[in-house]
Amino acid sequence: MIYFKDGKFLEEDEVHVSVNDRGYAFGDGVYEVIKIYDGALYTAQEHLERLIESAEKIRMAMPYTIEELGEIIQKLQTENEITMGHIYLQVTRGVAPRVHQFPESIQPVVVGYAVENERPMHYLQQGAAMKSVEDVRWLRCDIKSLNLLGNVMAKQEAFDHGCQEALFVRNGLVREGSSSNVFGIKDGVLYTHPANNFILNGITRRVVLQLAKNLNIPVEEKEFTLPQALEMDEFFYTSTNAEITPAVTIDQQPIGQGVPGPLTRKLQVAFDAQIPMLVASGNVEERESNGPAS
Amino acid sequence: MIYFKDGKFLEEDEVHVSVNDRGYAFGDGVYEVIKIYDGALYTAQEHLERLIESAEKIRMAMPYTIEELGEIIQKLQTENEITMGHIYLQVTRGVAPRVHQFPESIQPVVVGYAVENERPMHYLQQGAAMKSVEDVRWLRCDIKSLNLLGNVMAKQEAFDHGCQEALFVRNGLVREGSSSNVFGIKDGVLYTHPANNFILNGITRRVVLQLAKNLNIPVEEKEFTLPQALEMDEFFYTSTNAEITPAVTIDQQPIGQGVPGPLTRKLQVAFDAQIPMLVASGNVEERESNGPAS
Repeated sequence: MIYFKDGKFLEEDEVHVSVNDRGYAFGDGVYEVIKIYDGALYTAQEHLERLIESAEKIRMAMPYTIEELGEIIQKLQTENEITMGHIYLQVTRGVAPRVHQFPESIQPVVVGYAVENERPMHYLQQGAAMKSVEDVRWLRCDIKSLNLLGNVMAKQEAFDHGCQEALFVRNGLVREGSSSNVFGIKDGVLYTHPANNFILNGITRRVVLQLAKNLNIPVEEKEFTLPQALEMDEFFYTSTNAEITPAVTIDQQPIGQGVPGPLTRKLQVAFDAQIPMLVASGNVEERESNGPAS
Repeated sequence: MIYFKDGKFLEEDEVHVSVNDRGYAFGDGVYEVIKIYDGALYTAQEHLERLIESAEKIRMAMPYTIEELGEIIQKLQTENEITMGHIYLQVTRGVAPRVHQFPESIQPVVVGYAVENERPMHYLQQGAAMKSVEDVRWLRCDIKSLNLLGNVMAKQEAFDHGCQEALFVRNGLVREGSSSNVFGIKDGVLYTHPANNFILNGITRRVVLQLAKNLNIPVEEKEFTLPQALEMDEFFYTSTNAEITPAVTIDQQPIGQGVPGPLTRKLQVAFDAQIPMLVASGNVEERESNGPAS
């Protein structure tokens, strides 16, 4: 596996992170995960723009332009010959003796690597289980930062209960998943949390909102409660790797009929259709013919 | 400088952190800072006990007993011949391909090093300036975790305003500093935030509460508002390195007479007195004769 660090492309055992990297001591950094479909980077521009936005929100300089970042992630894909998988790209404030305030003349550290993985076809087709978890994270969830311990603990709690994803609830309101955004469908209307400081404005979330518009599905970006979530006709969560994963249970209670619903299916098909190479390879047909789990 | 990592004592350039260390990707770890006075570790047992508690709170196994951790930090002090300074000790969940949930059979990574630094005599004597900052951190501030971006941003905001420490305010209530606990004194009573999930229960905080008891200063562990803080007769913040630092202004408004107050001085003297080597070296006398800045 070829990694990128400090301007160089390196073998894994050549990549050394400093013990004084502020990413290691403070989680003082931001990151992105960019999907690779059939050897092509998907929505890379949107991810890199958000990376730069996250960096600005924590007042961190970016050592590369968006074009240079694009070249780095492209080279990570080609060097590692990844057909299906993703790029992980992280920027930390840099290396300096540990003090909380920003050190002077510090150089950010950019690290990137590629991961080969399959699309989660089982859960895309049959749906997944969610577990509600009290959202104790900080109030800047709009920043894609490395301070992810709250997300880690929530995801593990979901796994402990045999679920695939946690559902964050804060002040009674459903916010997002531990590494995803969430959507509910009720009486033909698609509901999701507004893009504010309580959630990350996911790239896949934005794609879904655009697809809903194209499909004339009415959208309401407004908060809803956990009891309201349980009463939805359909529910799903989205992320770069989870794509549009139907949530068929929340806290062991079935959503709708307890199987992926028709509008979720429609959005999944539309999602696949806008990835040209997927259409070409016939994955959409395959999924449609498989249908939901009975 | 000699570092500790993975059971070995190493030179700085031999210490390599893995890019796949969960401390680097998620801030998935905990830490302690332990003071060295005159070559001796101060309240080391209390710090190591809290490290183990923090690890338990994030469900992380500790690879060493408290005795072994004690030996590691002792060796870091002696090998580096630190007379005045501190030990930094950090434990992360370990190295594994990046997924949020806990990886199986993962080995925690323990990293430690020593830092030489002087006591902050200028601020101990003359007092420091605080800047109030909205507390947007997560709701598990009782865990001494590596998710410190909120603390970093607050400290920097304080520095930007010419202050030495931030004062976190959440829901109108004063909580703690960005790397310290805070205390106010009004009509002879010492007030501080109760030790719950909104603050870290500092070791120096505990020492101060014990000293107040010894000195028959009445203590109330209860929340107070920012306006109430501004009306205090005296104010100070505490941490391993800041010790008992008088806060003579908050948001540029003087606290009391705008100089360190008499009960703060009394607690500083009592603090020094319980560090036998400081008394022996005469630092207490030196500070008392210097008095507050005029």
